[in-house]
Amino acid sequence: MQIIGADQRESEKTPSPSAGIVTELRKWRKSQDSDKVIGLVPTMGALHEGHLSLIRQARRECDVVALTIFVNPTQFAPGEDLDSYPRTLDTDLQLAQKEGVDLVWLGNSRDLYPTGFATRVEVPALSDRLCGKSRPHHFGGVCLIVLKLFQLFQPTKAFFGEKDLQQVTIIERMVADLHVETEIVRCPLVREDDGLALSSRNVRLTPEDRQRALSLSKALFAIEASWRGGERKVQTLVEGAFEALDPGMELEYLELVDRNDLSPIEGEEATGDVAVCVAARAGDVRLIDNITLEFLS
Amino acid sequence: MQIIGADQRESEKTPSPSAGIVTELRKWRKSQDSDKVIGLVPTMGALHEGHLSLIRQARRECDVVALTIFVNPTQFAPGEDLDSYPRTLDTDLQLAQKEGVDLVWLGNSRDLYPTGFATRVEVPALSDRLCGKSRPHHFGGVCLIVLKLFQLFQPTKAFFGEKDLQQVTIIERMVADLHVETEIVRCPLVREDDGLALSSRNVRLTPEDRQRALSLSKALFAIEASWRGGERKVQTLVEGAFEALDPGMELEYLELVDRNDLSPIEGEEATGDVAVCVAARAGDVRLIDNITLEFLS
Repeated sequence: MQIIGADQRESEKTPSPSAGIVTELRKWRKSQDSDKVIGLVPTMGALHEGHLSLIRQARRECDVVALTIFVNPTQFAPGEDLDSYPRTLDTDLQLAQKEGVDLVWLGNSRDLYPTGFATRVEVPALSDRLCGKSRPHHFGGVCLIVLKLFQLFQPTKAFFGEKDLQQVTIIERMVADLHVETEIVRCPLVREDDGLALSSRNVRLTPEDRQRALSLSKALFAIEASWRGGERKVQTLVEGAFEALDPGMELEYLELVDRNDLSPIEGEEATGDVAVCVAARAGDVRLIDNITLEFLS
Repeated sequence: MQIIGADQRESEKTPSPSAGIVTELRKWRKSQDSDKVIGLVPTMGALHEGHLSLIRQARRECDVVALTIFVNPTQFAPGEDLDSYPRTLDTDLQLAQKEGVDLVWLGNSRDLYPTGFATRVEVPALSDRLCGKSRPHHFGGVCLIVLKLFQLFQPTKAFFGEKDLQQVTIIERMVADLHVETEIVRCPLVREDDGLALSSRNVRLTPEDRQRALSLSKALFAIEASWRGGERKVQTLVEGAFEALDPGMELEYLELVDRNDLSPIEGEEATGDVAVCVAARAGDVRLIDNITLEFLS
């Protein structure tokens, strides 16, 4: 397994005078045979089973698997958890090695956002809802880093988890709109046995908050059960979810949306491709989760 | 010379059911040898000697020269001259053939901005000045179409005229920020013998307005002469230009700027890499021009 950027880590006070992660990556990319299927798994590290499922999917579908680890600052607003975001690089590298990753590329702000950086990439119509309401700059930062990685890696396929449903929806739109020649592969959300959606942020939950956080998936499962039972009234479905939600959770949103563009379900009855998306805080940890109902109808 | 999109022209009421200009272009791109230097000359058509100088430069530096013709609607605001922008396709194709262009690609909105299109690309810090003040959406539209073309053509080099100094500055910034693997080649502004900067819009000038418009370059030449004479006081330089300007022109701006980021020259004396940029209307035709002083210092 090759690693680019290990000597350029932001924690290093005096990075060695290497050519830089961008130049090294371009060299790596050029050295790949043009007929190889290159798979990219972009992450912020703190790898968990959700990430590993992306890597495994990439391993199955591609000749070469590249993993990126970079806690991208432009997708965090001041006051958000950029500084406290979990960083577990040594473990991440061991996991990557074990999963047969070919290249790990470690990003750093010095090379990715040098002085004078000024470009913005956004999909406002999809970013102004759900998580975008409380995190207005978040998806702009996501678009930026993903588009940069796509230019650098020129991957045949890139793998994203449906845990971040709004993120993957926005990325698909951006890639289609800009004619980026990368196929976006959606991979299913992965849960703990007790239902909690996997997230790097889960390690920051206290045992009590983790217990409360379980009610997020319970709320979604309540809607799912009700839907399976034939219920289609939006209000009834949502009320069932609210009942399951721990009152100690600070709810940000719980919405039934059209799964294609994440627009709110209009009307009293839910029809079409429906997803339920939820975001809430347990203590100071913000969590999101979602479930898809259309396949059950 | 190959042409893609001739059967898909927007003037055609029933375009033939071809695969579409995007698919055809991807096929063309894949058919190019990977070691070839591909040159792209993006235009809005109505080709003049300025465009031809770009094509000739591309012809000298590249193995393959692709020319695009598309009056890109996203860089026009409502009320601007999208509808009256000159369109001279037949002549353009003859000129392209004569200059040895390998591929002409004709864009159309149906394929480039289909229903649901939602992505925005911007460089706000460079777009908020000069032309961006009166055309706040213009450079966002330029970034969008240029980035789309760069994804589709994956050109080794792309050629832009310094007539649109702010445009090429913004494109260079975007390409660097996003790591787009295309080299931006700046080509010098081309003038008529009497000094008028070449522009597709010049054909819309009445003889009287054309005479007035000449004073734009005269104003710049006045600054140049004064600069050569050793004058460095911003106010004196600008005043000399104002005197040369025909009072029948509706001046939008005339500014001394740092040529690297187009920021206004601060202080009483002009130092460093200085450009003078001007925009004004002659009748209902908006014209721009610029001159570089740094090489003369």
